Amino acid sequence: MFEFTVVARDPSTRARAGVFRTPHGDILTPIFAPVGTQATVKALTPTQVADAGATLVLANTYHLYLRPGDELIRDLGGLHPFMQWPGPILTDSGGFQVFSLSDTRKVDADGVTFKSHIDGSMHRFTPEKSIAIQENLGADIIMAFDECPEPLDREYNEEALARTHTWAERCQAAQTRSDQALFGIVQGGAFADLRQQSAAFIGGLGFPGNAIGGLSVGETKEQMNAMLEVVDRALPEDRPRYLMGAGMPEDLVNGVMRGVDIFDCVLPTRLARNDAALTRAGRLNMRNAQFTRDESPVELGCDCYCCANFSRAYVRHLILAGEMLAATLLSIHNIHMLVTLAREMREAIIAGTFAQFVEAFCQGVISC
Amino acid sequence: MFEFTVVARDPSTRARAGVFRTPHGDILTPIFAPVGTQATVKALTPTQVADAGATLVLANTYHLYLRPGDELIRDLGGLHPFMQWPGPILTDSGGFQVFSLSDTRKVDADGVTFKSHIDGSMHRFTPEKSIAIQENLGADIIMAFDECPEPLDREYNEEALARTHTWAERCQAAQTRSDQALFGIVQGGAFADLRQQSAAFIGGLGFPGNAIGGLSVGETKEQMNAMLEVVDRALPEDRPRYLMGAGMPEDLVNGVMRGVDIFDCVLPTRLARNDAALTRAGRLNMRNAQFTRDESPVELGCDCYCCANFSRAYVRHLILAGEMLAATLLSIHNIHMLVTLAREMREAIIAGTFAQFVEAFCQGVISC
Repeated sequence: MFEFTVVARDPSTRARAGVFRTPHGDILTPIFAPVGTQATVKALTPTQVADAGATLVLANTYHLYLRPGDELIRDLGGLHPFMQWPGPILTDSGGFQVFSLSDTRKVDADGVTFKSHIDGSMHRFTPEKSIAIQENLGADIIMAFDECPEPLDREYNEEALARTHTWAERCQAAQTRSDQALFGIVQGGAFADLRQQSAAFIGGLGFPGNAIGGLSVGETKEQMNAMLEVVDRALPEDRPRYLMGAGMPEDLVNGVMRGVDIFDCVLPTRLARNDAALTRAGRLNMRNAQFTRDESPVELGCDCYCCANFSRAYVRHLILAGEMLAATLLSIHNIHMLVTLAREMREAIIAGTFAQFVEAFCQGVISC
Repeated sequence: MFEFTVVARDPSTRARAGVFRTPHGDILTPIFAPVGTQATVKALTPTQVADAGATLVLANTYHLYLRPGDELIRDLGGLHPFMQWPGPILTDSGGFQVFSLSDTRKVDADGVTFKSHIDGSMHRFTPEKSIAIQENLGADIIMAFDECPEPLDREYNEEALARTHTWAERCQAAQTRSDQALFGIVQGGAFADLRQQSAAFIGGLGFPGNAIGGLSVGETKEQMNAMLEVVDRALPEDRPRYLMGAGMPEDLVNGVMRGVDIFDCVLPTRLARNDAALTRAGRLNMRNAQFTRDESPVELGCDCYCCANFSRAYVRHLILAGEMLAATLLSIHNIHMLVTLAREMREAIIAGTFAQFVEAFCQGVISC
């Protein structure tokens, strides 16, 4: 299980196309995964998520531990039947959320004590606890518990990296299920030497896949790309690489060129709830008056359910009228856009046309 | 066009099964129609509305006139392509909303001047204006502009009824499109003599269908049933009868027994957004702690998308987590419940088993 096969490589970049085998189906890489934080991709049924082209979805350990509780989900058969997602699921470790959502937290060598953002109650995550929760949730890919510092704080990054590395080993030791792939997470902020050191350490632990955390959280695109290049050289070639939390179209292209296989982000669904459409020519604010009588679809040539059926004028009307359907339709479109972009990169790598694909794509989008 | 054929009658009640032909398909009666006030059934795509079993949907003249404007919808081809509903659509006249939503209004013999509930701007509806708007919207069934008084205010009902009758004639005269069925509306509050007089007058105008307005707005179930019986005797037998705004399960059964063919109501979708499920055994508050670990579907034996896939525990989790999917899943279930109830009554009337159906149904539900 959890075999990763590289089926094609682009000769001029680090891009590769692969297949990662999981108990709930093959993950064809490069892939973009939408986020179902609370065991639902916001505003969509699982049928709509699948129809938008997604095959892998994320869920969130921090949120589901707090509500409805990982033991409840375990007792109801795990995340797959609970949220009715038959394909592969990935849960993060809760590390990122503890550091970004909880306003009160105390880190020590053993773990993190934090206050729930829901009711203020106190909780504690350790590497062992994070793995136990993720085993209860039952995703196909689970993540090591890590610490996620500000990318530009050198001192904090050094200190946190030591913990993240120890915790990665403890997560490995704590794992009891063999039907879940545990991925390690490379940290190190925006510092090349720390990233190099972390990728070498995490890559050396023999995880079936490795993730790159702590990017896309404040550093520049140039810094992100530089870090990806450092990490790419240090991580094992024969394991999938997962860039956590990056979901701008250009992030996907830049990441794939630098050896990344898996992406996830709340961006497509969050933008949708804020009236924005992701297109290959940039973002559209669908509330804009220019769309008032626009009979064309949100993105010409797109075959998602939104674009195949509805006009920009209708989507704008739904937004102004405060109708939930606006978020649903734009979520479908935005997920479809990113999932399709990743799939087309895969097809281009296999077809040997990745260079042309990137060139054509970058004519439309800034900063790639 | 707009032929109504009664295909079966129940011998012991006034129930009948019929077919009403429209340009966008046959309406098989008895039927329940969900409401898409702003050209969307809230929280659902048209695909989900159709999958829930609905064939006829409503849209709202008052709302769509104010936003996005009926001329915009006309210029985009009318409501059918705008909201992507391929089946029959019915628009109300705006009368009810002018009297229930606008907090400032002035009625005179010619029409109503009212303040928009959106931006406070002043507008005027006359019978001619209501028909012109509805012709722009382009539904299959359009409604005469009426006045909808409190059901228990005798003096106001008498005065309003005279206007409603004159306005019905003016609507008939104003109609220019032959591909829309204009229905008259019987008013008269909770007063048998006024209802009798109104049904005789409206029924005598030769509309292809007749509606019963001003019920389900404050009178008792006994008063509603009594009014339906008066109206039933006075309205022409060979035209469909539409009871406006009634959507409790027992309203459908009581109405069909008293000769009603068509029902609509915001109830199933509004209840869904307030965490309530309509079932044959009554309403369930899905937020209730008793469902925390309940693996059974919202309603056992129901084959809607919600019940076929998800547990009560999952639906409750979505509600507590504030996820939009809760409203979507419960809207699907609640619409499916009412649409199926109407369809099963039709099947029972045709099969000659309506009496048994009513008996079995009333064992589960109060006040029918």
